[in-house]
Amino acid sequence: MSASTSRGGGGSSSGASGSGTKSRGSGSGGPCGACKFLRRKCAPGCVFAPYFDPDQGATYFASVHKVFGASNVGKLLSKIPVHKRLDAVITICYEAQARMRDPVYGCVGQIFTLQQQVLFISNLQLRLPVI
Amino acid sequence: MSASTSRGGGGSSSGASGSGTKSRGSGSGGPCGACKFLRRKCAPGCVFAPYFDPDQGATYFASVHKVFGASNVGKLLSKIPVHKRLDAVITICYEAQARMRDPVYGCVGQIFTLQQQVLFISNLQLRLPVI
Repeated sequence: MSASTSRGGGGSSSGASGSGTKSRGSGSGGPCGACKFLRRKCAPGCVFAPYFDPDQGATYFASVHKVFGASNVGKLLSKIPVHKRLDAVITICYEAQARMRDPVYGCVGQIFTLQQQVLFISNLQLRLPVI
Repeated sequence: MSASTSRGGGGSSSGASGSGTKSRGSGSGGPCGACKFLRRKCAPGCVFAPYFDPDQGATYFASVHKVFGASNVGKLLSKIPVHKRLDAVITICYEAQARMRDPVYGCVGQIFTLQQQVLFISNLQLRLPVI
């Protein structure tokens, strides 16, 4: 996932397969990336399977697990409508990776930077002469 | 904590006492807000105690625990230098509360909105006539 975010389940490189339809990871019968990371059997209907593929998914899940915990994310996802879960996974991966990079500020550091940027540009605009 | 963020351990209403010096919650010998929520003994040197007061702190810790898990946050804090921990607690509370309000986008929704805002203001600026 890049620094740029997008709503609506658009393109993602978060390791999320994004199909939202499969009940198991790779479709090959192997565990999904989350269950692979957790070294557990990937049960049919696994809440992580449609979003964490067996390859890159395991790497992304590692940070999600470290920051949020698999159990917390599983509970959160199961309460979200299926059509919104990919977006949730993308934003959770984004937050987790930001917190891994910057343990103090996480992605809130980016909010701060953007707020400053909005203020700066707005002030700049006020100083422009009006004709 | 308000929607507006600030770095550097500035003002906060996150339930964080912010002293960063006490080894126990309220100083009255009772448990800190985190240990009160977790219904456990607040041991001397509790990593949460300087930041979660026994009153409002317990409420804030509830969302932190639900989203991140007490154990994950404890581990994260213990790896951060003491003088940076208040900032970490503030941003963690902020992220947790945003995820409770908006389970799909959390505070990443705010990043998206701010990015759109920066783009919008920048484009507006480009359209202003130059004299």
